[in-house]
Amino acid sequence: MEKRTLKRLIDVAAGRIPADLCLKNCKVVDVYNRQVFSGDIYIAGGFIAGFGDDTFVDALATYDVKGKYIAPGFIDSHVHIESSHLSPAEFSRKVVPHGVTTVIADPHEICNVCGLDGFDYMLNASENIALQVFLQLPSCVPATPFENAGAILGAKEIGERIANERVLGLGELMNFVGTSNGDNDILDKIMVARKINKIIDGHCPGLTGPLLDAYGASGVANDHECTTAEELRDKLRRGIYVLVRQGTGCQDVLNLVPGIDEKNYRFCLFCTDDRQAWSLEKEGSIDNNYRLAVSAGMDPLMAICMSTINAAECFGLRDRGAVAPGKRADLIMFDDLNNLKVESTWIGGRLVAKEGAYLAKDKKVKPVAVEGKMNVNNFSEERLRLHLKSERVRTIRMHPIAAVTMAGEAHVKRDADSCWVRDNQDIVKIAVVERHKGTGNVGVGLLENYGLKGGALAMSIAHDSHNIITVGDNDRDMVVAVNKLVEIGGGITIVKDGKVLDYMEHEIAGLMTDKPGEYVAERLYELVTLARTKLNIHKDINPFMPLCFIALPVIPELKITDMGLFDVNQFCHVDICL
Amino acid sequence: MEKRTLKRLIDVAAGRIPADLCLKNCKVVDVYNRQVFSGDIYIAGGFIAGFGDDTFVDALATYDVKGKYIAPGFIDSHVHIESSHLSPAEFSRKVVPHGVTTVIADPHEICNVCGLDGFDYMLNASENIALQVFLQLPSCVPATPFENAGAILGAKEIGERIANERVLGLGELMNFVGTSNGDNDILDKIMVARKINKIIDGHCPGLTGPLLDAYGASGVANDHECTTAEELRDKLRRGIYVLVRQGTGCQDVLNLVPGIDEKNYRFCLFCTDDRQAWSLEKEGSIDNNYRLAVSAGMDPLMAICMSTINAAECFGLRDRGAVAPGKRADLIMFDDLNNLKVESTWIGGRLVAKEGAYLAKDKKVKPVAVEGKMNVNNFSEERLRLHLKSERVRTIRMHPIAAVTMAGEAHVKRDADSCWVRDNQDIVKIAVVERHKGTGNVGVGLLENYGLKGGALAMSIAHDSHNIITVGDNDRDMVVAVNKLVEIGGGITIVKDGKVLDYMEHEIAGLMTDKPGEYVAERLYELVTLARTKLNIHKDINPFMPLCFIALPVIPELKITDMGLFDVNQFCHVDICL
Repeated sequence: MEKRTLKRLIDVAAGRIPADLCLKNCKVVDVYNRQVFSGDIYIAGGFIAGFGDDTFVDALATYDVKGKYIAPGFIDSHVHIESSHLSPAEFSRKVVPHGVTTVIADPHEICNVCGLDGFDYMLNASENIALQVFLQLPSCVPATPFENAGAILGAKEIGERIANERVLGLGELMNFVGTSNGDNDILDKIMVARKINKIIDGHCPGLTGPLLDAYGASGVANDHECTTAEELRDKLRRGIYVLVRQGTGCQDVLNLVPGIDEKNYRFCLFCTDDRQAWSLEKEGSIDNNYRLAVSAGMDPLMAICMSTINAAECFGLRDRGAVAPGKRADLIMFDDLNNLKVESTWIGGRLVAKEGAYLAKDKKVKPVAVEGKMNVNNFSEERLRLHLKSERVRTIRMHPIAAVTMAGEAHVKRDADSCWVRDNQDIVKIAVVERHKGTGNVGVGLLENYGLKGGALAMSIAHDSHNIITVGDNDRDMVVAVNKLVEIGGGITIVKDGKVLDYMEHEIAGLMTDKPGEYVAERLYELVTLARTKLNIHKDINPFMPLCFIALPVIPELKITDMGLFDVNQFCHVDICL
Repeated sequence: MEKRTLKRLIDVAAGRIPADLCLKNCKVVDVYNRQVFSGDIYIAGGFIAGFGDDTFVDALATYDVKGKYIAPGFIDSHVHIESSHLSPAEFSRKVVPHGVTTVIADPHEICNVCGLDGFDYMLNASENIALQVFLQLPSCVPATPFENAGAILGAKEIGERIANERVLGLGELMNFVGTSNGDNDILDKIMVARKINKIIDGHCPGLTGPLLDAYGASGVANDHECTTAEELRDKLRRGIYVLVRQGTGCQDVLNLVPGIDEKNYRFCLFCTDDRQAWSLEKEGSIDNNYRLAVSAGMDPLMAICMSTINAAECFGLRDRGAVAPGKRADLIMFDDLNNLKVESTWIGGRLVAKEGAYLAKDKKVKPVAVEGKMNVNNFSEERLRLHLKSERVRTIRMHPIAAVTMAGEAHVKRDADSCWVRDNQDIVKIAVVERHKGTGNVGVGLLENYGLKGGALAMSIAHDSHNIITVGDNDRDMVVAVNKLVEIGGGITIVKDGKVLDYMEHEIAGLMTDKPGEYVAERLYELVTLARTKLNIHKDINPFMPLCFIALPVIPELKITDMGLFDVNQFCHVDICL
């Protein structure tokens, strides 16, 4: 803040000059005493000046809140914007009306595709939007050595951006095995953040005991991979803040609320991690976490703290997270603490959303250096042929949780060349086609219990390397699907009988689009319906969600990368034949 | 932390290599879940690695805690080391056995005398001692324009030290009137801290309403001048952390505990502010705040949090304040949560105090550029003569609270030259003799209800400018007292019938001595006894404490500086005659 702005703010707070805006007749949520009080809020230069008194002259503008609640804007403490499929500007349009005013984003998806160009795109594209976006430097690009991503972010690359004022620190250390092991290159990255006293995010599902101690000892400040109340308390014991997550796939709030009490809630924050456009449309963002927690019995003002001041404290964001003098005027208005529906959102003292409508005039940024990253080489039906030494094979078996698969076994048929052919089992072919460096890699496997019949689909969203995933019951359709995907620069394609049935472009790195969120949600819904009706994918499965994670070799049990089948428990590639 | 140290810490935490030290059979105080659990603590390189398990090999050293409690070391969130009369090394010797492992000190006393030389002395003298000392850049040197201090610390001088890694920010903004007014030079200082995102300490007794909002809007993070529960909650509402103080003079804990509850305690921390050597000897430090709070009904683990993690959070000290992996091994051992007596203290994994004995081998620093600051010019009995235009005069009237005086009135006698002469009223002369710049200033006034008869005393501790204060019932003894004080380089002198009865040297800036704390406490006790027995000062008064504050023009009601009598309520100098 400039000195001049500060002087003005002090003068307004003291009542010497009029405020820019006064919110009158508020029920102000005080996160410090954790109570509500009736009062007015005076705002100047985008910051809260104070609560005024009877002697104050009228502000330049006055808004009668009519006794509704005013709370600090919500903070999403960990999110991958790319998982919404939306550009930062469109993401802002979707979450701000739900009361989210600040996010701490980890852009490892786009960095996996485009490296620092991807990071810079996210920085630039979030510079002049209403939503306040902080970015962590991704620590796991690539996620593992068992796949080809589009870039490598080493300690050197991280060092080139770590000092940026909108960078809070190092992104989630997903390689928790390597971190607890004190691996050298991970330590180098950690030291880059520690040297300038920035935050280190964590990711350590199920870690306990000495390995959890080791993980905490590295300096990790928080974790969002808690699924049980016991795990929450165990991690808090290590001084690791717990980010209580409600994503599209990963839904932890109801499991964790029982472990949160008056004594430890201050170290618990809400996050969304990954929420697709339709989840944002239908259910919301941090407000959704809030409502779920309160419905499970959490005190509403405790839930407010978890959505605001707790995150500000964890990340050292001293200028927000509370309705208090000197803080940013990032505020939300609502009338029911128990079933909280955000009616209005202010960011920096500007009304940016009202009754679901987004009012901000954001500056959109054309994606530069992050478009059309489809560098596929030497791909054809020939590359999909699956030569088998035996008939007993590993299958990737679908699991109710989208990010997880089981390692299955099957006896399959082979043709005269010992290549796999379809029979009447619910088994289809899956392939990961490398698309960043043009290596020509194609990893081929078999997917069981997916249901697909009579076609193929392809997509370029496949955590974390985001190579092309294609699934089909015949090689020809798979090739058509992949070729169309390359042609459109990435997204989703659906093919039947050699023809493209439908597709959606994700022109930003093959991961996101700049189209409006409601359009994306609608189109995704249409594609899901098409995949179920025309390709016969089982109706109790989201056709695309599991495929998003099927190339993610850090979540069990059997996965596939461009380098082949991967056994997560053994943490190495394996042959398809048993 | 070096990468090598971090690697080792991670290896120890995971159990791959032996720890330096294991504290076995602890009742570990977990400040995150606010509970106690039984376990062991493994320490390496001065940091906590973790809690181990049955597979761990023996550490290089093991200490059996035998079921006693291990908690994080205490943090004093606001203290003036100079008020103890002790050098930093001696101060460390006194407070560390009481469990204090970190202090955030504001050296405005010595800076008022010696400017940045004083600051540098405090930095150097606290570099190689067990106690971890952070220093704030004093914001109020001089405290007001109504006195001559030894230096001026403007925004420029503050800027020259603000980036030091042991500087957390800007010291208490005592000029709360000027701050709420947005005064330009105060804003300049504030901007120095804000530019590098450092903390700004506050001091705003009794401030409420819009002026408190204005004060908070400036960016002040905390305040230690709360005396009522209502005031505590009112300041918390503004996002101003409340530092709950128990000093020698200012004792707020019992008044404030009723305002602290489960909802707001996280923003409350303990501090001592000013504690003299004998207070440290007799009662302790932050452990004293703790015991008082618990005796008043506070939950012990809540009080632990106020002594540890809350301060770490307020000041962004992420490496301490908890017993958790990666934190400094600053620990205390005790066996009773309700009547907490610290038995052992570790700092950086080293045992530095045991059963009251200080075990650390500190490197003492010879005071350089801060010695013998007694630049008195043109002082004599003539300068003490008090010419009165009338017989009706203002008197500075003693008050039960040492820092406070009342504005009194009296009819006094004058001699043939219209100068004041003693009569049988309990009124004596008081003078402030400027000693930094040799201005020759002498401010003369009358002190009522002090009791002194038959002598004089002088001291060079007089908040905040620390000019010489002398009180006496005859000018000759006052001059002898002052001259002796100048001769010894500062401290305290007591004079009767023209002879020096006793004195104590404060060779460091006239404020502190490098002698051991117990010696200082004993000598101060002897001087207090002497002042009461030989000079007849009222026994219910501490002879020196009120004089420490009588030149402090920011605490009501009628004070005196080297420039004359000062009315605090009107905030200006006034004539002695009414």
